[in-house]
Amino acid sequence: MAKLDEKTKKLLLGKNFIFVSTINKDGSPQLTPTWVDTDGENVLINSALGRQKVVNVARDPRVAIAVVNHENPYERVSIKGKVVEEITGKAAEDHIDKMSLKYTGEPKYRRNAPGEKRVLLVVKPLKVY
Amino acid sequence: MAKLDEKTKKLLLGKNFIFVSTINKDGSPQLTPTWVDTDGENVLINSALGRQKVVNVARDPRVAIAVVNHENPYERVSIKGKVVEEITGKAAEDHIDKMSLKYTGEPKYRRNAPGEKRVLLVVKPLKVY
Repeated sequence: MAKLDEKTKKLLLGKNFIFVSTINKDGSPQLTPTWVDTDGENVLINSALGRQKVVNVARDPRVAIAVVNHENPYERVSIKGKVVEEITGKAAEDHIDKMSLKYTGEPKYRRNAPGEKRVLLVVKPLKVY
Repeated sequence: MAKLDEKTKKLLLGKNFIFVSTINKDGSPQLTPTWVDTDGENVLINSALGRQKVVNVARDPRVAIAVVNHENPYERVSIKGKVVEEITGKAAEDHIDKMSLKYTGEPKYRRNAPGEKRVLLVVKPLKVY
């Protein structure tokens, strides 16, 4: 396991996007931009059940992440990691509201689909560079 | 094959970074930010021989690309594609100078390593979304 240094934690806590790459069933790469958070040790990604990356990491938990400072695209960090936990239920639903507040200023997340169930992917960093 | 629409072409021709995901030998995802160009039909990525993504696409040509407008991170396009050609020699060396001019204003690219050989990856888009 790798430790998140202060610069990386700051990037993850800031209003920055990450790009997450996972592996599709056919072995091809899948890449999506998403909001991000950290508990100080892990990268936290809030997604929804059924989304491609959530389906993918259930099969193969290995991910590659790039986080970029939206104010300076040359400031960025790459993280190789592994999804070690998938949290659903109230904790995941509350967390997406926290993300909504951070990124949009809205304290309540506006769901894309009725009945959408959120899932919080806990990514343990294996390498940070 | 998918066609690059005008918005995507503009993003690729602009001073924007892309994120490119390839597949490592062990099947895990690899993700790197890079400069980009287009010939109007394909995504052009100038890299160097020996770099991880160049080694990876020689084994498995499938890539996933995300391009983001650096002035508006919400404007972005995802491209699934396949490396169909790898150009080395003068054309690739001249092209990195073009990229240097576009991104840094310097007409001559400053090599990271002595003896570095550039390679231009021609990525045919299969899906744009």
